[in-house]
Amino acid sequence: MKLVAKILDIATRGVLFNTLDARSMGVLNGDRVQVINPKNGVSVAAFVETTSTIIQQGTIGIYRITNERMHIEEGAEIEVREAGRPLSLDYIKKKMDGGRLTKEETLTIIKDVVRDDLSSAELTAFITASYVNSLDMDEVEHLTRAMVETGEQIKFASRPIVDKHSIGGVPGNKISLLVVPIIAASGLKIPKTSSRAITGAGGTADLMEVLAFVEFSSSEVQQMTEKVGGCIVWGGATNIAPADDRIIIQEYPFKIDARGQMLASVMAKKFAVGANLVVIDIPVGHLTKVATMQEGRKLAREFIELGERLNMKVECALTYGDIPVGHSIGPKLEVIEALRVLEGATEPNSFLQKSVSIAGIALEMSGKAQRGQGAAIAQDILTKGKALEKFRKMIEIQGGDPNVKSSDIVPGEHQFIVKSPASGYIIDMNNRSLISLARTAGAPHDPGAGILLHAKKGKLVKEGEPLFTIYAERSWRLQNAIEEGRRLMPVFVEGMLLDRVPSISEI
Amino acid sequence: MKLVAKILDIATRGVLFNTLDARSMGVLNGDRVQVINPKNGVSVAAFVETTSTIIQQGTIGIYRITNERMHIEEGAEIEVREAGRPLSLDYIKKKMDGGRLTKEETLTIIKDVVRDDLSSAELTAFITASYVNSLDMDEVEHLTRAMVETGEQIKFASRPIVDKHSIGGVPGNKISLLVVPIIAASGLKIPKTSSRAITGAGGTADLMEVLAFVEFSSSEVQQMTEKVGGCIVWGGATNIAPADDRIIIQEYPFKIDARGQMLASVMAKKFAVGANLVVIDIPVGHLTKVATMQEGRKLAREFIELGERLNMKVECALTYGDIPVGHSIGPKLEVIEALRVLEGATEPNSFLQKSVSIAGIALEMSGKAQRGQGAAIAQDILTKGKALEKFRKMIEIQGGDPNVKSSDIVPGEHQFIVKSPASGYIIDMNNRSLISLARTAGAPHDPGAGILLHAKKGKLVKEGEPLFTIYAERSWRLQNAIEEGRRLMPVFVEGMLLDRVPSISEI
Repeated sequence: MKLVAKILDIATRGVLFNTLDARSMGVLNGDRVQVINPKNGVSVAAFVETTSTIIQQGTIGIYRITNERMHIEEGAEIEVREAGRPLSLDYIKKKMDGGRLTKEETLTIIKDVVRDDLSSAELTAFITASYVNSLDMDEVEHLTRAMVETGEQIKFASRPIVDKHSIGGVPGNKISLLVVPIIAASGLKIPKTSSRAITGAGGTADLMEVLAFVEFSSSEVQQMTEKVGGCIVWGGATNIAPADDRIIIQEYPFKIDARGQMLASVMAKKFAVGANLVVIDIPVGHLTKVATMQEGRKLAREFIELGERLNMKVECALTYGDIPVGHSIGPKLEVIEALRVLEGATEPNSFLQKSVSIAGIALEMSGKAQRGQGAAIAQDILTKGKALEKFRKMIEIQGGDPNVKSSDIVPGEHQFIVKSPASGYIIDMNNRSLISLARTAGAPHDPGAGILLHAKKGKLVKEGEPLFTIYAERSWRLQNAIEEGRRLMPVFVEGMLLDRVPSISEI
Repeated sequence: MKLVAKILDIATRGVLFNTLDARSMGVLNGDRVQVINPKNGVSVAAFVETTSTIIQQGTIGIYRITNERMHIEEGAEIEVREAGRPLSLDYIKKKMDGGRLTKEETLTIIKDVVRDDLSSAELTAFITASYVNSLDMDEVEHLTRAMVETGEQIKFASRPIVDKHSIGGVPGNKISLLVVPIIAASGLKIPKTSSRAITGAGGTADLMEVLAFVEFSSSEVQQMTEKVGGCIVWGGATNIAPADDRIIIQEYPFKIDARGQMLASVMAKKFAVGANLVVIDIPVGHLTKVATMQEGRKLAREFIELGERLNMKVECALTYGDIPVGHSIGPKLEVIEALRVLEGATEPNSFLQKSVSIAGIALEMSGKAQRGQGAAIAQDILTKGKALEKFRKMIEIQGGDPNVKSSDIVPGEHQFIVKSPASGYIIDMNNRSLISLARTAGAPHDPGAGILLHAKKGKLVKEGEPLFTIYAERSWRLQNAIEEGRRLMPVFVEGMLLDRVPSISEI
C-alpha cells in the first residue's frame, strides 16, 4: 500500500495508520509492518497504531525514532507492506524451551535488536529466557561476537590497548576518574567507554559529564586516545555494541543483570574498542551484585575464559564492596572527591588504594611495572601530579575546562545533615538504601544531588554527630529524600532503636 | 505536577509530555508516571513519551486507551506524579529466579495486568518466566482465582450451569455451533463465552459473528442464558477474566500457550460464568497443541484436579486432531457447514460425531442422559430439529436473523480450485499449513475467506480431481494464498513429487 508520510515529532517507534487504511490493509494495533522509503531504499519493521482523526486516510504517521533510520521527508510517498514474522522469534522460543542458540541464531536475534525489528516485549522475552535458561560459554561467546559485529569497531595501529571495567553495584565507585589518567600517564592507551547510571546514583559517564562532553563517535574516541592516551566517554553515543543499551533498558524494571548478558556486554565493548589488556573490578559484598568471594572467583574465571576465546588478556580484581568507595555518592560530589585526590589529597584511603591497585594491575599486565610493583608505580604517577596533568588533557580534548579545580565544583544548594541518634559504633551501611536515597535526592539527573558520608562503618560516633549530608538541587527532592532517609536508615549505629511501640505520638 | 489534558485519538496507552515538562519533572521516555483525574479520583499508571512540538509546555497528551479508564475531558486539569515501582515486578523477578508465587503475589500481578499498570514488556517477562519455570498446581489455582476476582462474575439462581471448551489447534473445529444448541435444547443452561481467532483461522466468536452480534456485557450474557438457555458470545467484550486477553496478546508472537496459563485461562472463564459442569475437548494430533495421547491424558488430569479445587466437575474428551474437523475452514464456510447439519445433513461425519459426543458427555454429567446414552440423546435432539430451533432463538436474542438458512451465507467470491497433481491416496494433511493458507486468504478478518476440502486423508483421488478450494474476498489475497499453497502443499497425495531438480524452468 502506498501512503503519504507525515512525520510525527514523538520520541517513540512505529507508524500511525488511519483506521480505514489499517482495515483495508488488514492490520491491527500492534501488528508489525514493513515500511519502505523508495527514495533511499531503506526498509524497516514498525509496529502499528491507529487513529480515526489525527491521520487522514491515504496518509501515514511516522514516529520520530523510526524516522531517524528512514529519513523520510514530510509529504513523501512511502510504501507499506505486511511484514513477515522475524525468524528471531523462533530462536527466542527455542531458548524459552531450553535450547542452545547457535552462532547464526544469536547473530540473527542481535541484528534484529539493533534494527529495532523486535518489540520491547519480544526483546524482554529473549532476555528473560536467557536469564532463566542461562547461556553457556559458547552462547556467551556468540552473543559477544554478535554484539561486536552489529556495531562499530576501533582498530588502533599499535597494541597494547588497555581497558578497565567495574561490574558495579557499589555506590561511590568513581575510580575510573583516577585509574584512566594514571594508565594514560604511564604511556599506555585507554579508550574508556562508560555507562550512565541505570540503577545506580551516577555512572562514570555521568561523572565525567560534570567536567566535559561525553558524547563522541567511535572515530573521535580513537583520535582522542591516539592524541592524549585516554578519554572517558559515554558508550551509548558511540554505536559500539549498540545492542547492549537496548538490552539494558529492558532489564531495568527487574533489576536483573543476567550473567551471560553481562559477560557479553562488558567484553563486547572492550573487544570493539580494540582492547587486548583488560582489568575487571568485581566488588564483592552482601548487597552488591556479587555476594560472596566464591561467586566472585567463579565470575572472574568466566571473564578470563571469555577473554581467552576472544584473544584478550583479562585479569580480575575482587574488591571490597560491602560499603561505598570513598565518602561521596552522586556526580558532582564524586567528581570533587576525585579531583581532590588528583590534586594531592591522601584521603579517603578506600578510594585511593582501590584506584592505584586497579591501575597497578594494568601496569603489570602491560609490562610497565614488574609483578607486585604496579600499585606503587601507580601511586607514584599520582603523587607526582602526572595523573592530574593527564586528566586535564583529557578534559581539554573532550571540550571541558582543563584548569578546573575541585573547589570550582558546587554541589546542590539544598542540604540536610543527618545526625546520629545515639552514641556507638557504626555497625552497618546499606549500599542499596544509600543509592536509593541519592536517587530520590535527584542523582544522577541532577548532578549536584547525592550523599556525603561523614563517617563510615566501624567508626565511633557520639549522639548528635553528623552521619551524612544529603544534597539536592531542588527543595522538594530534598524533602522526599529526608523522608526516605528516616524510613530506610542507611547508616546504622549500634544502640539505635529500630522502632518503638507504642510510638511517642500514640502515648 | 499539574497539567492541562489534551486527548489524543490514538489507540494506544500512555501519556505524551512536552520535553521541557518531562525534564522539569525528571522523567524520561518509557518511565512510568501516575496520572490522576481530580474530577473522579481515578488514578492510573502510564508510560511516558515525549515531543518538542505536538504538545505545548503545561499541557499533556492522554492516549485513547489510557483515557478509556480515566474519562478526562479535553482541557481539564490533571495531576501527574512520579510513580513508584510496582511490587509486581519483584514477584515477576521471583518467578524468573525459580520461586513459587503465593496467592497474594499472583493476585497483585494480575491486578496490575488488568489495570494496565505493567508495560507489555513487563507482562511478557511474567509470561516467559512462568513458561520456562512452569507453574505448579497451587500457582495455577492462585492464577485462576486471581483472573476470576479481577473481572466480573455471573451468579445464576439455579444450577447446573454447563460449559464446554476446546483447547484448539485443530482447524475447522466449529463444534460449538452444534454443541451449545443441543445442550440448551435439552433444558440445560450454557452461557458460552468464546474467543476470536488468534493463531487460528476462525474462533467460535468469529463464526457466530457471521450470524449475530457477539459483543455483550456479562449481565446480558446472564439474561440471554436465563431466557433461551444459551448463547455464544465473544468473551473479550464481557469483562470476564479480562487479564486473560492481555496475556494471550503477549503470547502471540511466540505461538506459546503455556500450560499453567492455559489451564487458568480456561477454568477462570468457566468459573466466572458460574459453570459447575464442564466438558473439555482436547484434540490430539502431531501438529496440534497436544501431540500424544499420553500428554492429552496428563492435561486432562490437570483440568480435572483444577476443577476439583474450584468445586467444578470436569470431564475431558481426547479427540482426533490430526486433520481438520469437517470440510470447512474459515468463518462463513464453517457456518454454512454447521447450519447444514442443523438443517438435517448427515455429513460430514467427523464433525457430526464429534459434536454429539461432546454434547453427550454434558448430558450425562448433568443427569439428562444415563452413562453411555448421552451421544444418542444428543443425536436425537439434533435429528428432531430441536437444536436448530434452539440455535435460531439464540441467533434472534443476539440480534441476528433467526430465519437464516445455510444457503443464505455467501463465501468469498474469489475462488481457486487446487487439483491433485497425481493419482493416489491422500496420505497427509498439514493442519498448520491449512490454517496458514486460510489466514493468507484473509480469514478470519475477511469472514468469506477460507478453505473447503473436497477430500480428506485416506481417500483415493485421481490426477486432476479437486483437492480443495481456496476462498477469498479480495483477489490479491487469493493470489497470495495460491502462491503460498504451492509452497506449503497442505494436502499431500501419495506419489506427488516433492521437488524436481533441475526445475522445468531451468532446463
